[in-house]
Amino acid sequence: MKIMVDAFGGDNAPIDVIKGCLLALETYSDIELFLSGNEDTLRKIATENNINISKITIVDAEDVISVDEDPKEICRSKSSCSMAVGLKALKSGAVDAFVSAGSTGALVVGSSVLVGRIKGVKRAALAPVLHTDNGCFMILDAGANLDCRPEMFVQFGIMGSVYVKRVLGISNPRVGLANVGIEPSKGTEAHRCGYELLSNCQCINFVGNMEARDMFLGKCDVIVCDGLSGNMMLKTAEGTSKFLIGILKEIFTRSIFTKLAALSLKNQIKRVKKTVDYREYGGAILLGISKPVIKAHGSSDANAFKNAINQARMCVREKIIDEMSKNISGSMGDE
Amino acid sequence: MKIMVDAFGGDNAPIDVIKGCLLALETYSDIELFLSGNEDTLRKIATENNINISKITIVDAEDVISVDEDPKEICRSKSSCSMAVGLKALKSGAVDAFVSAGSTGALVVGSSVLVGRIKGVKRAALAPVLHTDNGCFMILDAGANLDCRPEMFVQFGIMGSVYVKRVLGISNPRVGLANVGIEPSKGTEAHRCGYELLSNCQCINFVGNMEARDMFLGKCDVIVCDGLSGNMMLKTAEGTSKFLIGILKEIFTRSIFTKLAALSLKNQIKRVKKTVDYREYGGAILLGISKPVIKAHGSSDANAFKNAINQARMCVREKIIDEMSKNISGSMGDE
Repeated sequence: MKIMVDAFGGDNAPIDVIKGCLLALETYSDIELFLSGNEDTLRKIATENNINISKITIVDAEDVISVDEDPKEICRSKSSCSMAVGLKALKSGAVDAFVSAGSTGALVVGSSVLVGRIKGVKRAALAPVLHTDNGCFMILDAGANLDCRPEMFVQFGIMGSVYVKRVLGISNPRVGLANVGIEPSKGTEAHRCGYELLSNCQCINFVGNMEARDMFLGKCDVIVCDGLSGNMMLKTAEGTSKFLIGILKEIFTRSIFTKLAALSLKNQIKRVKKTVDYREYGGAILLGISKPVIKAHGSSDANAFKNAINQARMCVREKIIDEMSKNISGSMGDE
Repeated sequence: MKIMVDAFGGDNAPIDVIKGCLLALETYSDIELFLSGNEDTLRKIATENNINISKITIVDAEDVISVDEDPKEICRSKSSCSMAVGLKALKSGAVDAFVSAGSTGALVVGSSVLVGRIKGVKRAALAPVLHTDNGCFMILDAGANLDCRPEMFVQFGIMGSVYVKRVLGISNPRVGLANVGIEPSKGTEAHRCGYELLSNCQCINFVGNMEARDMFLGKCDVIVCDGLSGNMMLKTAEGTSKFLIGILKEIFTRSIFTKLAALSLKNQIKRVKKTVDYREYGGAILLGISKPVIKAHGSSDANAFKNAINQARMCVREKIIDEMSKNISGSMGDE
C-alpha cells in the first residue's frame, strides 16, 4: 500500500519525518512511502545528514502552511503547500493514506474540502487514542468541532467503534458520552439529546454518560464529546501528567539514595510517561474523511512518525473506511 | 463571626461535618459555628460517638436534599432541608457565611434564589482553588453554568481577581481565558468576544488565552472559562493524577528496595497528592452570591471541613463581597 507523509509538518520537520519514514520502511514490508514537500530542500537536507532517501518517492510541493495561518488558506493561497499536495494525491487515489504533523486546523479543513467526507457524515472528528494502565481508548472529537449537534455524537460513536474494533482489536466496544455527570439529565441540551440518540442507536454499545475524572479507569473504549470538551480533557491530561512527572523527577534527584531508587524504577517510570503520551500510539486519526488521514503530534520525533505511519497502514489494511461508510449509511436508514 | 455548616451534606455527613467543626473551633478563636440539620439525629449521633457538641449551635431542619434530586426542589418540596435552612439564615444575617458539601446543583440554585446575587452579577460561578508546585490558582466557572456569555467571563475575572488578591495574597493577579489555543482568534464566538472584553476591562490584569495543558505551569492566578470546560479540566486533572498516583503506588510496592525508596519519599509523594487534591484547600467558593457560600467536596473528611470553614472565615474577614460589588458595579459603568 502507498502512504504519503507531509515532509514539512511538525516541529521536527523535515529531518525527523525522513528518519521516521526510514524506520517505518525497515519495520513494515508492505508499505511504499511518499513524501510531499519541496524536493530540492529535501534532497539537500538528506545529503547534508548522510541519509539515503532513494526508497522514498518525493512529490514536489512549493510551500508550507504554518500553524499561525488561517486554516482556510490551504484551499486558497496555500493550495500548493506540502499538506495540500499530499491531500490531493490521496483524493486522486495515487496514495492510500496521508500522515501530517502540521497545522491541525489546516488538516481538518483541507481533508474535508480536498478529500471529502464519508457520505452522510456531518463533520470530521479528531480522534486520538490514549492508554490506560492495561488498555487504551479513543476520544473524539478532540477539537475539530467545538460545538457539536447531538446527531454528531452518534456518528462519532459509530466511527470510533469501527476503529477500535478493527485497529485495536476491541470487540463490542463500549461507547460513553463525556458529560458533567452520569445521570441522563446532566449537561447541555446537546448532551441530553445526544444521550437519547446514542441509547437508541442499534450499532453502538452505548454505556451512558462518563465523567472526565473516570476517563482513565477503562470504563469506555470510545469516549464521544464535543470538540471543546475533548480538547480540554486531552490537554489537561497531558498537562497534569507532565506536571506530576516533573515533580517526581525533582524528587528522585534529591539524594544518592533516591537517585538509586529512581534508577531501579526507570522502566516503570517510562511506563507511566508512555501512558499519557499519545505520540506513543502514533497520531490522531481524522474520522469521517473518506480516506485515512492521520494527524501526528506537532512535536513528533522519528519514532512517533513511524508509529503514525503504522497507524495509517492499519487503517488501510483493515479497510475501516468501508465499514464506517456502511454503518453510517445504515444508521441513516434508522432515522 | 458566625459560620453555618450544612450538617447533612457530603458522603461522610454528619459525623465528619461535626468533627470538622470541632477541629475548626480548636484552631480558630474568632468563629462561632452553627450546624443546620435535624437536631434529634445530630444529638443522637454525637452521643453515640461520645462527641461533645455543646459549643456548636444547632439550627433544626426537617429534611435533606440529595444529589439525585432536581436542584430546583430546594425552593419547592425541599425548602426545609438542611441546605435551605442554612441559606435562609445566611440571607437573614443570622450567620455571615455558609458551608455545604451537599448537592452542587442545589447549592447553586439555592444560593442564587434564597440568598441572591451581587448586584449586576449575571450568574454565580463555582470557583475551586488548585495548587501548582509552588503556588495556587483559581478556576471559574467549574460547572455552575455550562454555557457562558462573553460578559460572564469578565465578571468571573473581576470576582476571581478579588478573591485571590484578598484571600490568597496574590497581588495584581494574572487572569487567563481557558481556550483551545493561545491566539485571540481561537475558540468559539463566546471565546473570541470574551477575549476582547477581557482585554478592555480596566480592573483585570488579563494575560490572554491559556491552553488546558498549561494550567499547572503557574502562568495565571485566575483561569476563567465556561462551566463545561472548567468541569472537564478540573475532573480530568483529578482523574489523571489519581490514575498516575495509583500506578506509582503499585510500582513502589514491587520489592523491598522500592518499598524502602517509597518510604524515604513518603512526604514528597504526599506533596504530589496534595497538589491536585482541592480538598486540601477547603472547598470551591460560589462567586457572585451576595454572601460567602463555600461548596466543600462531596467526599470531604473532617480535615477538609475544617479547611472549608477556614475559607469561609477568610472571606468574611477580608470582606471580599464588598470589594467584588464595588468592582462589578465599576465595570458596569465602563460599559
